[in-house]
Amino acid sequence: MKITFIGLGIMGSRMAGNLLKNGFDVTVWNRSPSPMEELKAQGAKTAASANEAVPQADVVFSMLSTPEVVEQVFLTEGGALSHMKDNAIWVDCSTVNPSFSLRAAQAAAKAGIRFMDAPVAGTKPQAENAELVFFVGAEKSLLEEVQPYLNRMGNKVLHIGETGKGASFKMLVNIMLAQSMAIFSEAVLLGEKMGLSKAFLLNVIPNLAVAAPFTKAKAEMVRSDDYEVQFPLELMYKDLHLAALTAYELKQPLYLANVAKELYAEADKKGMGRLDFAAIFKYLEER
Amino acid sequence: MKITFIGLGIMGSRMAGNLLKNGFDVTVWNRSPSPMEELKAQGAKTAASANEAVPQADVVFSMLSTPEVVEQVFLTEGGALSHMKDNAIWVDCSTVNPSFSLRAAQAAAKAGIRFMDAPVAGTKPQAENAELVFFVGAEKSLLEEVQPYLNRMGNKVLHIGETGKGASFKMLVNIMLAQSMAIFSEAVLLGEKMGLSKAFLLNVIPNLAVAAPFTKAKAEMVRSDDYEVQFPLELMYKDLHLAALTAYELKQPLYLANVAKELYAEADKKGMGRLDFAAIFKYLEER
Amino acid sequence: MKITFIGLGIMGSRMAGNLLKNGFDVTVWNRSPSPMEELKAQGAKTAASANEAVPQADVVFSMLSTPEVVEQVFLTEGGALSHMKDNAIWVDCSTVNPSFSLRAAQAAAKAGIRFMDAPVAGTKPQAENAELVFFVGAEKSLLEEVQPYLNRMGNKVLHIGETGKGASFKMLVNIMLAQSMAIFSEAVLLGEKMGLSKAFLLNVIPNLAVAAPFTKAKAEMVRSDDYEVQFPLELMYKDLHLAALTAYELKQPLYLANVAKELYAEADKKGMGRLDFAAIFKYLEER
Amino acid sequence: MKITFIGLGIMGSRMAGNLLKNGFDVTVWNRSPSPMEELKAQGAKTAASANEAVPQADVVFSMLSTPEVVEQVFLTEGGALSHMKDNAIWVDCSTVNPSFSLRAAQAAAKAGIRFMDAPVAGTKPQAENAELVFFVGAEKSLLEEVQPYLNRMGNKVLHIGETGKGASFKMLVNIMLAQSMAIFSEAVLLGEKMGLSKAFLLNVIPNLAVAAPFTKAKAEMVRSDDYEVQFPLELMYKDLHLAALTAYELKQPLYLANVAKELYAEADKKGMGRLDFAAIFKYLEER
Repeated sequence: MKITFIGLGIMGSRMAGNLLKNGFDVTVWNRSPSPMEELKAQGAKTAASANEAVPQADVVFSMLSTPEVVEQVFLTEGGALSHMKDNAIWVDCSTVNPSFSLRAAQAAAKAGIRFMDAPVAGTKPQAENAELVFFVGAEKSLLEEVQPYLNRMGNKVLHIGETGKGASFKMLVNIMLAQSMAIFSEAVLLGEKMGLSKAFLLNVIPNLAVAAPFTKAKAEMVRSDDYEVQFPLELMYKDLHLAALTAYELKQPLYLANVAKELYAEADKKGMGRLDFAAIFKYLEER
Repeated sequence: MKITFIGLGIMGSRMAGNLLKNGFDVTVWNRSPSPMEELKAQGAKTAASANEAVPQADVVFSMLSTPEVVEQVFLTEGGALSHMKDNAIWVDCSTVNPSFSLRAAQAAAKAGIRFMDAPVAGTKPQAENAELVFFVGAEKSLLEEVQPYLNRMGNKVLHIGETGKGASFKMLVNIMLAQSMAIFSEAVLLGEKMGLSKAFLLNVIPNLAVAAPFTKAKAEMVRSDDYEVQFPLELMYKDLHLAALTAYELKQPLYLANVAKELYAEADKKGMGRLDFAAIFKYLEER
Repeated sequence: MKITFIGLGIMGSRMAGNLLKNGFDVTVWNRSPSPMEELKAQGAKTAASANEAVPQADVVFSMLSTPEVVEQVFLTEGGALSHMKDNAIWVDCSTVNPSFSLRAAQAAAKAGIRFMDAPVAGTKPQAENAELVFFVGAEKSLLEEVQPYLNRMGNKVLHIGETGKGASFKMLVNIMLAQSMAIFSEAVLLGEKMGLSKAFLLNVIPNLAVAAPFTKAKAEMVRSDDYEVQFPLELMYKDLHLAALTAYELKQPLYLANVAKELYAEADKKGMGRLDFAAIFKYLEER
Repeated sequence: MKITFIGLGIMGSRMAGNLLKNGFDVTVWNRSPSPMEELKAQGAKTAASANEAVPQADVVFSMLSTPEVVEQVFLTEGGALSHMKDNAIWVDCSTVNPSFSLRAAQAAAKAGIRFMDAPVAGTKPQAENAELVFFVGAEKSLLEEVQPYLNRMGNKVLHIGETGKGASFKMLVNIMLAQSMAIFSEAVLLGEKMGLSKAFLLNVIPNLAVAAPFTKAKAEMVRSDDYEVQFPLELMYKDLHLAALTAYELKQPLYLANVAKELYAEADKKGMGRLDFAAIFKYLEER
């Protein structure tokens, strides 16, 4: 079976690397060439374009930054979708909005391609160690075909529902991350103003039942003032934007996420987009 | 040693009950008489007023609903503080704003009384089972005198700092509870609109690292649509208000908590104030 | 010169009617047929589809509800744009987001069509009485060609700038309308809770320098509890959504409009979408 | 008739000056001495303390910055209220929250003093030119006694209702000012990002029916980047805080004002508190 992996960013490069480590036949493509070179050294074939990367593949994985990029690479006239072989499988691991996933699925069906949305939970270290969690939206039978590959990149596969539901669930996870990090930050900063020590607050709060457990690792970033990116703030801003878009499509009010979105907007505007999203703390502290 | 316990609501009645179970000499007072009758049956002495309840006490505990009530009972001219015996200890377990605790401490000092703020984390079941966590603001030596009593009502005593710091820390905990419950609710409701099942969402989300662990128990309330009060929504609204007040005093912006406050305002206005604060879900669902 | 008018809603039907009154040769099309019948009675030609309505036209006006509808009617493959005659002019009066206007302009240029964005300020009575204000984004020479028609539908034409700038300015106007109506409503409702009479507040506030003058007419709607639609609440919600989208594209924080958006979301969800947007008062009062 | 004027800030000094110009017998007091010197030069008597300023007065006016200051000067034990002569009138022109006005009125009644809340609309130039608008909460007969003095400091006296209603109405006016300035600022800034010129936006928007007329003068401040204080940003922040407090007391949700409050909080934190509140534009532009 031949695999193609499109999109070799922080996450994609490590996911493709894990497929290679497990002996799969993997062709890769990325817009900027340097990650391709690294994967070539690990045994990957490389291609000059997405269109040239996909024609032989039985399964094409994509891990791209925004729905706009997925659209451009796959869905535009003459895009990669039109170069895939009949009945091949396209697994989109990108974090996109559910209505986009549905649109991609329709385009795929029209092109004779089987589509699955399988966004992931986890950041750089989980990608590195094949400990990602996949949220899958697909028919069960399709998931079964793809599962062997997912098992090499992650350690948990949640079958959320039919097409689009993987994207839906991922969106919920990300808006909770974004908001929880912001309320944790606002609490620590208020605490400091109240005269409590930052070290104490960062140490104690994440271990209470009132704080999301992921804040433990983020508190460490705050403590060391080192926001080496695991999940970039600018993509979190994008995800909050996509959630606002989805909430609009569904006529569902979403107060807190919409306000959090503006806080991330400001941090991004201040040039913190490429830091880890935990840098929302840094933004709120310095503003 | 003689103890007096003022305020026998959901929490106070169980806290006083635990002191009685451990054989302490406890006098109680509550504005409405029925909880006094129950504690009398457990061995408590009762008093006709707060002022009559305190004169013999070595340690007076108070567990009242708002700073206004604490002020009225203790701090007004001729209030309970002026009837306490010299050098007695007043432990205020009420959830109040830090600047109020400082004011109470000053009034106590002037009256020759030693003051400690010791608000608690935990709701009805923790109060029942003596599993509360105390956040203490006081000199260490004062805490040591009071610790034997706290140990009968809770299983953890965190010495946060000097006077007022217990109240400060408690405020942070409560605004995180309020906001986390609201973002969890908004996520579940958006998920339902996306076509995911409520049962699935309530089951899965609280177990992810993105959700505060306390939401597990609250998800059960949502599932059964039974919001039997553990911590009343109207008091959560009060705490968000006190946080806004404190943020103003300290000139610290606090976006998300201020918006969450308005959501709780609406739920309270809709008549949900006496339900558990998890009923913010119900409000957001039905509005 | 032959004119085609696409989109005969509250606004479009009256605008087309004013062109007819001034003796122009007008062909009309609307998705639902009944408004076409009314305009036929006023002298319009009708067409069976947008595609059949445009081929003869020198100038095509469109007044459609959302960018999605404009896209579907004009921009999809084989859409109306491809049936327009070479060098014809397309004047889009719809309220859309600026980046959509730019995309429409590009598609038009590619098809040999000259494009102008000319959204309007004003509601039903202004449309009726040819008292609309046009915000035009176009080359000056193009505006000069179109001005004679605009002058029959409105009494003021503001040349805002090049293509897309009409849409940009219109967006600012609408988010100010939406927010001003919401803050006026919240002020009146708080005033009532303070014990001031609603009649007094509705009478006095709109005449103060602190209130946008348009609130005078809206206060009348509130007073009579009659929200007969002039500008539908659901379209205001759409415009706030488009503003949020634009703010995201431009990385510009926009706190208040984003929160106002959620208030309109709720009102729309409650079934008030087809009332005038002043019904945000009614929603806030009843919630 | 003898008048005392307490509080000689931007507004109070000009109001007292207008009473002097009209030949009244005025004693003044201010915490910092320099404004007293200026008024002495205009004919005022000065006092060494508020308590020494009031005993002879038939009418005492106060124009102080916050309810806390009014409380400290008048209401504390041994404060100015207790030194006023029996049946004298206390006209509080300070901007305070309605529940504070009611508390002041009760204290006054207990002390045998007649109380009136009469906050003003207008800033420095209106104070200078005796063009203030008074919002009066009082019995009609009391207003009639005081009206001759008000007429020398303002050109309009609105009798809003009984005691406390002047303060109520003033609160509504101020939160509308605060929010309108913020939404105007956000609109101009978004417009600039869209490529419209700041000069154009500042020129056009305030003249539209969608903008509160007071923004004309504020646009001039923005244009010249000169925020010479007329109404200080820090007091606007205070008023938004008092509105939040009042909304809490009345259980009335107030979304937009609460979010605006946080924007002003940030601007104040950035050191802009002593500029005119129009500097919220500057803050939003620079953040």
